[in-house]
Amino acid sequence: MEKKFEELRKRCEDMAALGSAGALLGWDQNTYMPSGGAEARGKTLAVISELAHHQLTCKETGALIADLHDWAQAKGHDSFEGSFLRALKRSYDQEVKIPAELVKELSLATTAAFEAWHKARAASDFAMFAPHLEKVAELNLRKAEALGFKNSPYDALLDLYDAGMAREKLDAIFAELTAGLKPVIKAINERADKVSNAPFKGDFAPETQLKLSLEIAKALGYDLTRGRQDLSAHPFSSGISSPDDARITTRALRDWLPACVYASIHETGHALYEQGFPKEFAFTPLAGAASLGMHESQSRFWENLIGRSRPFAAWALPLYRKHFPGKFDSCTPEDIYRAANRSEASLIRVEADEVTYNLHIALRYEIETQLLDGSLKVKDAPELWNAKMQEYLGVKPAKDSEGILQDVHWGFGMIGYFPSYTVGNLISAQLHAAARKDLPGMDGLIAKGDFAPILAWLRAKVHTQGAKYKPEELLQRAIGEELSVAPFVNYIKTKYSELYGFKA
Amino acid sequence: MEKKFEELRKRCEDMAALGSAGALLGWDQNTYMPSGGAEARGKTLAVISELAHHQLTCKETGALIADLHDWAQAKGHDSFEGSFLRALKRSYDQEVKIPAELVKELSLATTAAFEAWHKARAASDFAMFAPHLEKVAELNLRKAEALGFKNSPYDALLDLYDAGMAREKLDAIFAELTAGLKPVIKAINERADKVSNAPFKGDFAPETQLKLSLEIAKALGYDLTRGRQDLSAHPFSSGISSPDDARITTRALRDWLPACVYASIHETGHALYEQGFPKEFAFTPLAGAASLGMHESQSRFWENLIGRSRPFAAWALPLYRKHFPGKFDSCTPEDIYRAANRSEASLIRVEADEVTYNLHIALRYEIETQLLDGSLKVKDAPELWNAKMQEYLGVKPAKDSEGILQDVHWGFGMIGYFPSYTVGNLISAQLHAAARKDLPGMDGLIAKGDFAPILAWLRAKVHTQGAKYKPEELLQRAIGEELSVAPFVNYIKTKYSELYGFKA
Repeated sequence: MEKKFEELRKRCEDMAALGSAGALLGWDQNTYMPSGGAEARGKTLAVISELAHHQLTCKETGALIADLHDWAQAKGHDSFEGSFLRALKRSYDQEVKIPAELVKELSLATTAAFEAWHKARAASDFAMFAPHLEKVAELNLRKAEALGFKNSPYDALLDLYDAGMAREKLDAIFAELTAGLKPVIKAINERADKVSNAPFKGDFAPETQLKLSLEIAKALGYDLTRGRQDLSAHPFSSGISSPDDARITTRALRDWLPACVYASIHETGHALYEQGFPKEFAFTPLAGAASLGMHESQSRFWENLIGRSRPFAAWALPLYRKHFPGKFDSCTPEDIYRAANRSEASLIRVEADEVTYNLHIALRYEIETQLLDGSLKVKDAPELWNAKMQEYLGVKPAKDSEGILQDVHWGFGMIGYFPSYTVGNLISAQLHAAARKDLPGMDGLIAKGDFAPILAWLRAKVHTQGAKYKPEELLQRAIGEELSVAPFVNYIKTKYSELYGFKA
Repeated sequence: MEKKFEELRKRCEDMAALGSAGALLGWDQNTYMPSGGAEARGKTLAVISELAHHQLTCKETGALIADLHDWAQAKGHDSFEGSFLRALKRSYDQEVKIPAELVKELSLATTAAFEAWHKARAASDFAMFAPHLEKVAELNLRKAEALGFKNSPYDALLDLYDAGMAREKLDAIFAELTAGLKPVIKAINERADKVSNAPFKGDFAPETQLKLSLEIAKALGYDLTRGRQDLSAHPFSSGISSPDDARITTRALRDWLPACVYASIHETGHALYEQGFPKEFAFTPLAGAASLGMHESQSRFWENLIGRSRPFAAWALPLYRKHFPGKFDSCTPEDIYRAANRSEASLIRVEADEVTYNLHIALRYEIETQLLDGSLKVKDAPELWNAKMQEYLGVKPAKDSEGILQDVHWGFGMIGYFPSYTVGNLISAQLHAAARKDLPGMDGLIAKGDFAPILAWLRAKVHTQGAKYKPEELLQRAIGEELSVAPFVNYIKTKYSELYGFKA
């Protein structure tokens, strides 16, 4: 069996190498690739992912998994071998279930949908995208049927991104979340001018923004011998070969400093997770996140719970002053804290603040679940979108490009992905509350820029587990809790009632 | 058969995608990769090249090649299908002949040799490297035996880098070359102070050097929508996905402008070749150079034959002035021409000028052929090296780090690679002489920076052929000549006798 395990391990190394090559090809595509290389790059990426798919789903891999499963589980649930087989089998089971023909149809439909989405958004014309969204929904339904599910086809899709997640849970989560947040948003809306973000507006040289954000990332614990920061149109992080090569990108807007600083902190949060996987997990199925939601919890933890806290503002102000002499002379730490936390209902998800963000997700969740179960027709989706924006946030898109056409996800063929953003936000608040208990002097640590104990806490609780456990089990092991809404809503209520001066 | 050809084509696309991924992984390793990623990168690269090797040598590929060979050749020697099969079969035949066991031994020995070479060079202690060089020679001999040869095992190795090349030809080439160049070197040596390179010495900001060299590259015809220039310790070019993504790197020394400018022109020459492959060759075995020698001819053509010509100096001087205001005020175009052509026998190959360069190769050729046929013992190699340096160039290394330990090639396990540098130099002079006949106003074109007709000539004669023909056939088709020494020696004699004022 040991010999068979070595054989399987070698196969996983091959998959990991292909995954690493694919990650680098993607990173380069969004950073340094000359524009003329785009078509060839698309083809190369398709081949690499096809080869990886083949390595995973071929009968040799399947036979080894079947042969080794019981032997590995007998080593113990927490053992390297047991977790290795469990994580691998999960991907294997998912991928073998989808027929090659459907994979191909999805790939072709997605390429067409992505192109149509691009044009539709530019023209702000939903009708151009509608037939593609129909096709995407239809193929995702077939995919769900191929994968299998107990209650709802949507569950099968959710499970791809967040193992164990289900519509039943999410219905309850979004109901509680929406009920908890709507009064807060209303109260803030009535006191809009109580909090100003003026300190962050001005003329900030982009090169200096990059230096500043890199200094912050380093202070948080980002190891630049195993990572780097580059510019890209849309910030992202990429575990090119985690834990030893985990990169981030950011962007910089000359007139709005937080775009760079907070994108950078967000992506650093992702990269810290990847850098925290144990070295011995490298090139195995365990060198990954427990789920997309868990990954997002790490970015949100640093971006919002830490990065928009009062002690963080106190620590960061001298840095802002150092990099932008004169610009922050008349600011107090409290001014910075308030500027980092102005909340305003707006149309665009990626620009939304932590109070309103999850309601953007809630309406996407409602639309995509209804599209999948057939209770909503594609042609009626923009109307529902706009009505929900009005209901949840009190704003209404004037055109579809700033409404239903704003996100690429459906154009990428992904249904069931959006909820992981909200799950991440919820977990980040749960982890934060638990960390505060374990580290009573946390505010003091943050105020002096000593982030190491906080990172060490995340490392111990989350990062070093890699993909050993499903997110639910990981959360239970880490802090003894189930996924819950209350810590997040409490955090928002406490913070914003004080900031805006209302009774929560 | 058409269907089988499509099947084979798909297999070649997979290999090309793996090749492209490997190229990007290598490019990144030498440009942006964080240092901590090195070990994982080595592993990833090994897996990717193993997968590519498997795709090429597996029995399915072999069967398709066997089935299609006659059908494809019947389409005509020059046809796409005929050339495709010929090029693929050449690589296939080479790779299947080497037993997996030997591939593995070579890989292990090379890893060890490379590490030993690094340490030996740092310590300038040949004894540390000697046992590894013995092993490399032994394994290369076994490789040659596996590949098969008519006259000399060295021929089998040569053929890997330069199809059709043989020791018999090279013996004659180096004899003629050495005889032709030695008197020139002697004459220059006696008039060393006749030519000054002082204009290129000074304090040149590296960022500005990069801008200048990129402007030159663009002027030569380098398409930056399908390429880019970055910094690396050792300049290189990489066809990441030719013809649509062909990149170069360069380096910059603050006190010596030509290090950047001429490295950049050299690599641009390589990249222009890759950008010139027909679009329909992409992802096929035809998207490659005819040989390493042919590739080198393109870099040398632009670097030396064009870039160190009198009209080029006249065109470049205003650019130097624009980028470095004040620094070239008192220079004439003739000063620049002379500065770009100071020749001086020196110890280090990569810093050698066009007069002395091939003698560095001649002595490496002598040593590696003798190591392979057993007439030279590894322990006696440094002595022969030093004696030959004295004989050919009149200089003698004080230590092995600036002698036999200077180059990485043997440490990389490569024997038979060096001659392609000289072959490239010879071809560049032949192409140049032919181009001058076809383009009578070539000097005038260069002087006004109109390089397009010269590039178009190379495109038509060489680039658009990709890997359709062996180098000998390509040269014959392009200019109706065999590989020959005379054009190069004549070029050197004419140019340097005038520059240094002696009778050639």
